[in-house]
Amino acid sequence: MSHRIITISREFGSGGRTIGKETALRLGIPCYDHELIDKIAEESGFAKEYIEERGEYSSHGGWFASAFSDRDFNGHSNQDYLWMIQRKVIQDLAGKEPCVIVGRCAEYILRDRADCLSVFIHADMDKRAKRIVKQYGERSESPEKRLKDKDKRRAAYYQFYTGMKWGDVRSYHIALNSGVLGIEKCVDILADLF
Amino acid sequence: MSHRIITISREFGSGGRTIGKETALRLGIPCYDHELIDKIAEESGFAKEYIEERGEYSSHGGWFASAFSDRDFNGHSNQDYLWMIQRKVIQDLAGKEPCVIVGRCAEYILRDRADCLSVFIHADMDKRAKRIVKQYGERSESPEKRLKDKDKRRAAYYQFYTGMKWGDVRSYHIALNSGVLGIEKCVDILADLF
Repeated sequence: MSHRIITISREFGSGGRTIGKETALRLGIPCYDHELIDKIAEESGFAKEYIEERGEYSSHGGWFASAFSDRDFNGHSNQDYLWMIQRKVIQDLAGKEPCVIVGRCAEYILRDRADCLSVFIHADMDKRAKRIVKQYGERSESPEKRLKDKDKRRAAYYQFYTGMKWGDVRSYHIALNSGVLGIEKCVDILADLF
Repeated sequence: MSHRIITISREFGSGGRTIGKETALRLGIPCYDHELIDKIAEESGFAKEYIEERGEYSSHGGWFASAFSDRDFNGHSNQDYLWMIQRKVIQDLAGKEPCVIVGRCAEYILRDRADCLSVFIHADMDKRAKRIVKQYGERSESPEKRLKDKDKRRAAYYQFYTGMKWGDVRSYHIALNSGVLGIEKCVDILADLF
């Protein structure tokens, strides 16, 4: 089966964003990552920084706390509104033209489309730690602590909005360890599957 | 990185065994699946039918029950002895020559080898159901019930002996949905990665 849309979920520091961009470049189709945030900002009025953080990460480590905090009188949180807008923007983009979409639970949002290839990129902790230090520099917290915190909050967000377990192999058509296979080989595989 | 060993874990009915055999055939290396059972039978004295079933499946749905039943005075069950022999046979095979090994937690047993590519093959329930009916025929139980039972018992076995979650994306270098990608494409990808 050939695919029109590639969605990429990724562990922080796994190089999933780079793989998405390189794959799109090779296929001559757009890759939506930061561009997605611009579009969501336009539609929602939320600040880009807020979307970047709260459109993929729970504000707490556990979904339970996240589920019941900051509700308005309809029972909706800002994060719920953001989710609904994100969902609409992703569905509109996927309906328009072949593309690569990085993050934001796109594989869940587009799960009923037969032309969508859903990809998960992950890597071992040591490889990811090296990568984030190289890319974002040192912080007061160790890179391992930063990664664990990000993983925990992304998993909580994913579980709350999709009802599924983040990183469960069955949620994706293909999952690749970029640390073992290498970024270039991951791009080869995905471009070939398109 | 090139790999000398490919280990294939698979959901029952996903075609993982066929993918292993085809990949090995294309690469001109042996594939250990039923041959593995013969070797384990030889070393252990257990019957092949017993090894086939109890070398990958818990006798109960939950690891807790499995963990505390049928112990001898050393605290070992038959299944524990089988695990130890299975472990030794797999390590010996991997040390001898390049090969494909299907099932039996080989990716966990060989996790410290840098030349080992660990693969997980899965597929959606409807595709697996069709496949097992075609391959093993109808039974009194529905194919969906048979698959759910197998999944549950294999997950329990895996968790008990490896301490890890079966089907967690991070346990494998590459995970493929054979129902969406097709058997042939899975073989192409794996043969190319070798």
